[in-house]
Amino acid sequence: MTERPGSETAAHVSVYDDGVEGSRTDRLATEEPLEIRISLAGTSKTIAITMRTPGADFELAAGFLFGEGVVARREQIVAISYCKDADLPVEQLYNIVIVELDPTSEIDLRGLDRHFYTSSACGVCGKASLESISLRGVCTIRSDACVSRETILSLPGKLRDDQDVFASTGGLHAAGLFDLSGHLVASREDVGRHNAVDKLVGWALLEGRLPLSDHIMVVSGRSSFEILQKCATAGVPIVCSVSAPSSLAVDVARAFGVTLVGFLRERRFNVYAGAERIRS
Amino acid sequence: MTERPGSETAAHVSVYDDGVEGSRTDRLATEEPLEIRISLAGTSKTIAITMRTPGADFELAAGFLFGEGVVARREQIVAISYCKDADLPVEQLYNIVIVELDPTSEIDLRGLDRHFYTSSACGVCGKASLESISLRGVCTIRSDACVSRETILSLPGKLRDDQDVFASTGGLHAAGLFDLSGHLVASREDVGRHNAVDKLVGWALLEGRLPLSDHIMVVSGRSSFEILQKCATAGVPIVCSVSAPSSLAVDVARAFGVTLVGFLRERRFNVYAGAERIRS
Repeated sequence: MTERPGSETAAHVSVYDDGVEGSRTDRLATEEPLEIRISLAGTSKTIAITMRTPGADFELAAGFLFGEGVVARREQIVAISYCKDADLPVEQLYNIVIVELDPTSEIDLRGLDRHFYTSSACGVCGKASLESISLRGVCTIRSDACVSRETILSLPGKLRDDQDVFASTGGLHAAGLFDLSGHLVASREDVGRHNAVDKLVGWALLEGRLPLSDHIMVVSGRSSFEILQKCATAGVPIVCSVSAPSSLAVDVARAFGVTLVGFLRERRFNVYAGAERIRS
Repeated sequence: MTERPGSETAAHVSVYDDGVEGSRTDRLATEEPLEIRISLAGTSKTIAITMRTPGADFELAAGFLFGEGVVARREQIVAISYCKDADLPVEQLYNIVIVELDPTSEIDLRGLDRHFYTSSACGVCGKASLESISLRGVCTIRSDACVSRETILSLPGKLRDDQDVFASTGGLHAAGLFDLSGHLVASREDVGRHNAVDKLVGWALLEGRLPLSDHIMVVSGRSSFEILQKCATAGVPIVCSVSAPSSLAVDVARAFGVTLVGFLRERRFNVYAGAERIRS
C-alpha cells in the first residue's frame, strides 16, 4: 500500500541570491490529478479530472459536484470513497474518488456538459454566462449579513496565520471561511484557487452547513467568474480577495447580490459590489 | 456592429484606505468566454470554451490547438476567423473563433478528449500525466541554449516594463518570450496564465517560429503542470516564473529537459531543473 500523497513534495534546488550560489532541499506544493467519478444506480461515470493538491479530496469532489449543479443537497450523496480496484497501479491509489449518488433523488447531469455543449443553448458572452448560473437555480442572495471595515481588514492576516510558513510564501493558494465577527471557521489550500473554494464548499455541504448565508469567503490572489459562481451557488454573501477581480467576477457579484471586496491588503480595500453590507 | 470587447472594463468602486472612504472609477481586467471551434471538411465542432481576456484571440485559438496536440504545423491551419452567423446576438460577436483546418493533413482529435476519457488508457497520477505528454509526440528538449544569471535576473523587470501600469498592478497575468540575450521578443496578457502562454505559442506557430529552441518563457505568478506541458510542447528550453512551481511542473521539466527557474524576483532565483543551461 503506497502512502497517500501529501500536500508537500521535497525537491533539490540550486539557489542564486545576489551573486551567491548555493543548494538546498526545497518544499514544493504537490500537484497531482484527481479523477472524480459518480456512481449512480450501479453505473459509474468519470465526471472530471482536475489537477489538485492532495488533501480534502472527498470535500473537493463534493464541492465540485455542488458547484456544477449535479447535487443540491447533502442527502443526495450516499457515500464517498477512493477507488479500490485491485488492478489499480499503486501510483494511482488516492487519485480516483467515487461519489455514490442516491438514485431515488433528482440528479441533474446537464451542467456537466456546459463547457462543451452550452453554446447553442445559451451562447457565449458575459451575459450568457450569468444566465447559465440562473438556469441552474441559483437565486440572488438576500442575506442581510453585515460586517465592519475593521473585521474585513483583519481577514487576510488571520488566513495567513492559519497557513504554515511554506504555504504562506506562495506555494499554495488558500481559501478561508469566516463568520461575520471575523472568526475563521475553516480553511483549505490547493495549487488551484478554485479547488480551495470547492474544498470549503464541499466541507460545508457534507457538514450540513449550506447555504453559507452568514459567512465571508476570503481567497488569496484574484477573483474570477468561476470563484464568484461557486460562492453564489453556495449562498456566500460576502467574498473578499487579496488581489484584483475580473470584469465578469464583478458582473456575477452584482447580478447575484454578492458583496465583492478586492485588493484587500495592508490597511485598504476596494468594494466592487454590495457595499451596503459593509459598515464603518 | 458592437465594438470588439477590450482588455479593460471600467467599474465604479468604493475605496477604503486606512480609515478614509472614497470612490472612483477603476479599471478591471476583462474576462469573457471564448468558444473555439474547428472546421474540418465542411463540419464544425466546438472544441472548448475558455474564460479569457479579449485580444489575440486567433493566437489563443491556434496556441490552444497546438498545445492540445490537434495541430502540429502552421500549414494545417487554413484560416482563422470570428463566427459571423447572421443570427448571432451582438454580445456574442468576437467571442466565437473558428479555426479552419486542412482536411488533407493529419488532424489528431484524440488529445481533446483526454480531460474526460484518458483514465482507462493512461490512468490518473503524475507519472501517467507525464506519459500523456509523450504519447502526443513531445520529445525531450535537446537545445544547448545557455543564458547568464544576470540575464535571468533582468527578465521580470523587462516584462513588467512592457505591461502598462494597470496590468502590472495585478489585474492581468503576463507571459513574455525572450531571446537568449534577454531581449523581449513578444508578450501577451490574460486573466488566465495558461491563456497568456497559449497566445504566445499561437503567435509563434502562426509566425512560423516553432519550435522555440532559442527562447526563454517568463510567466508571472506560479508554474504548474499545464504551463510546463505547453512550453515543452512548443520546445521552449528555459521557463522562468516569478513565484513557486508545483511538484508536477518540476517533474515535467525534468522529464522533458526543460530548465525551470522559480521565485525569480529582486536579485534571486531558484533552479528546479536543468541548471546546466545557466552560466555565471
